[in-house]
Amino acid sequence: MSRLRITELIERKRDGGALTPDELSWIVAAYTDGSIPDYQMAALLMAVFIRGFDSEELVPWTEAMLHSGDVLDLGHVNAPKVDKHSTGGVGDKISIPLAPAVAACGVAVPMMSGRGLGHTGGTLDKLESIPGFRTRLEPAEFTRIVERHGLVLAGQSETLVPADRLLYALRDATGTVPSIPLIASSIMSKKLAEDLDGLVLDVKVGSGAFMADEASARRLAETMVELGAGHGTPVRALLTGMDQPLGRAVGNANEMAESLDVLSGTGPGDVVELTLQLGTEMLLVGGITQERDEARKLLGAAIDSGRAMEKLAAVIAAQGGDPRVIKDRSLLPQGPEWHEITAPRPGFVAACDARDVGVAAIRLGAGRSRKEDLVDPAVGILVLAKRGDPVEAGQPLARVAYRDPERLEAALPLLERAWDIAEEVPQTAPLVLGRVG
Amino acid sequence: MSRLRITELIERKRDGGALTPDELSWIVAAYTDGSIPDYQMAALLMAVFIRGFDSEELVPWTEAMLHSGDVLDLGHVNAPKVDKHSTGGVGDKISIPLAPAVAACGVAVPMMSGRGLGHTGGTLDKLESIPGFRTRLEPAEFTRIVERHGLVLAGQSETLVPADRLLYALRDATGTVPSIPLIASSIMSKKLAEDLDGLVLDVKVGSGAFMADEASARRLAETMVELGAGHGTPVRALLTGMDQPLGRAVGNANEMAESLDVLSGTGPGDVVELTLQLGTEMLLVGGITQERDEARKLLGAAIDSGRAMEKLAAVIAAQGGDPRVIKDRSLLPQGPEWHEITAPRPGFVAACDARDVGVAAIRLGAGRSRKEDLVDPAVGILVLAKRGDPVEAGQPLARVAYRDPERLEAALPLLERAWDIAEEVPQTAPLVLGRVG
Repeated sequence: MSRLRITELIERKRDGGALTPDELSWIVAAYTDGSIPDYQMAALLMAVFIRGFDSEELVPWTEAMLHSGDVLDLGHVNAPKVDKHSTGGVGDKISIPLAPAVAACGVAVPMMSGRGLGHTGGTLDKLESIPGFRTRLEPAEFTRIVERHGLVLAGQSETLVPADRLLYALRDATGTVPSIPLIASSIMSKKLAEDLDGLVLDVKVGSGAFMADEASARRLAETMVELGAGHGTPVRALLTGMDQPLGRAVGNANEMAESLDVLSGTGPGDVVELTLQLGTEMLLVGGITQERDEARKLLGAAIDSGRAMEKLAAVIAAQGGDPRVIKDRSLLPQGPEWHEITAPRPGFVAACDARDVGVAAIRLGAGRSRKEDLVDPAVGILVLAKRGDPVEAGQPLARVAYRDPERLEAALPLLERAWDIAEEVPQTAPLVLGRVG
Repeated sequence: MSRLRITELIERKRDGGALTPDELSWIVAAYTDGSIPDYQMAALLMAVFIRGFDSEELVPWTEAMLHSGDVLDLGHVNAPKVDKHSTGGVGDKISIPLAPAVAACGVAVPMMSGRGLGHTGGTLDKLESIPGFRTRLEPAEFTRIVERHGLVLAGQSETLVPADRLLYALRDATGTVPSIPLIASSIMSKKLAEDLDGLVLDVKVGSGAFMADEASARRLAETMVELGAGHGTPVRALLTGMDQPLGRAVGNANEMAESLDVLSGTGPGDVVELTLQLGTEMLLVGGITQERDEARKLLGAAIDSGRAMEKLAAVIAAQGGDPRVIKDRSLLPQGPEWHEITAPRPGFVAACDARDVGVAAIRLGAGRSRKEDLVDPAVGILVLAKRGDPVEAGQPLARVAYRDPERLEAALPLLERAWDIAEEVPQTAPLVLGRVG
């Protein structure tokens, strides 16, 4: 197809028409090999953003992305292979305790995670707070570790789904990120390239999520479940609340420490509960059991017995990290300076805005404003009062670990407005809002 | 404004919001100087295509384009300065007889024309069929010729409205051409940069026009008249039919010859009539008279007396062309080979599809499929039977001047389907469908 042809395809999508599977496959391949320039793809992405893709279009588009590079072959792994993906939130370290707990129950977890994006944190950044830990693995090493341990915690391989890397960078620069079909195809092309037997999605809803309302989150979840079905991979999704940070720690090393707390039985209630809920789905989709209660019991036993923690220690060692962090948290970097946020008046915490806390953490240096920024693993926020908690005037709401006083200054206005203290006890909000698939 | 900022502006337009005058001016300037890359502008153009611009946005956008480069200063021209612009059609050579006829009545016509676009012809390509004629003039020479003769027939200066050249090329490659605000701002930024006292627009409607329906053509005309008013320049528009080619000649040298016919009193009725109608508007907007009948009489006298033809001859000479073409048409290139299209059955011509004839002319070599193509001035089509004409079976409908038999083969299927022969006399269609401004 020629340059003339791509403009005809752009025009058809612009006017609300549908593209054929052949046309969609050609577009993805031609963009990946450079024969469609960025400016034509940018126009098409904006047309897709506004006009949408129907499912007849989304399946071949996603399959074309998935086949734009290498696809993993985990045929030698002797266990059902299940991964989890979260659409991103604040304080969302769930992958770190979840993956070893599930692996300890007999599911292989070839986890490929991402870095912080926007105001949200990234699992890779958190893992890299462990001294020596390598998240960048060649496919052969990735496969060897998951074959040996039933668990690997790595970044996306460069050779998998190159179309997504190109498309994501272009979407980021052209105002075409928050589109359900484009998000769904980006996530699912990467996950389906991992050669999985099942996938569990944690679709976040609320101020700290990319989808602020439940209806959009549900549509995104349904779209991804359908894409999985189209590929023959069972997918289950939970819709979970992200109006306030998950757990207490927001940052990198502090989130790593909190993840270890979950595996040693001292984690915050919401993080423990979500780990068990998502773990249950992973055991069910992996076929370890058909019973929800049984799955939850298996996970509890894997944690209580220390087997989940041992699994994590083994994989930390296999990936070059220092497994002593498991016993000695002081090996994790810690904020050199501390600042307290206090309650201006007595009452009950009605809200602790996840987005404000997330952006504050980025401003402290826990995330990136630009791709080339370095993340400081030691800085972050410890949330001491969450929704429903009673507080006295002057009581600490959070402790802020910082290095640079100027960065603290930039973060403080957000933290000072993040908490809403009311006179009445607020309604409780459920952690899991819904289930799809 | 930073790279972050432009994505925010793209997002706002994407979601149907409005941009402020400052934001629009900055976008045009930053795109022209290269600080906004093509891919971001492509995404914005698609969002504008689908969401539109309201008039609060379109005026500053157009003014920013107009001021993206030099603006002409024709302050030393001692006459009202009026130009005409056509949105483009098939066989539309009106500018060539019109400009000298109007100039002979005391209006200065600093005409800047374009090249063929899509299936339509371009005035510059037609003028360049005159041996030696130069359409590329420096601003100083352009100004000198219009000061001296009250007429100049040239291409767009490279230094005028550079934003339009960049935007046009990008729109052409990204499926964002047929948008009323983008077309209106493209035309009006260029015309308003000519330092005019008035402007007459010929907005074409029909199969051979870019606007196929009258409602869209009327909205385009109204948008351009408003942009003129916003700038303080009176603009009048005629909506004219473009379902069949104008006149008999479609090509370049043959259209030049037909233009000379109009000035020597032997032109086809529709070309003569449209020349007089548009000329009347130009004399009215130029303030030569307030009376429509009087204007028409003045134009008739300018043509009948030979003054219009003398004016054209003088300007051809001033621009390096051979003025003897006026008396000796054989100095114009002519098709080396001829082919006849004949009526398959007797009846009346119900339609002669302008687009089919236009595309056939391009395939013969009278226009460009790609920007770098050379135009062959000699080839083209002479339409011998138009709507309402009775025809016998085997009677010629058109004569095709060609050079390359392969190109003729490519053109023939279109020409063979272009004519619709009916048993009944078809309804007559008016030449001028409406008037705006």
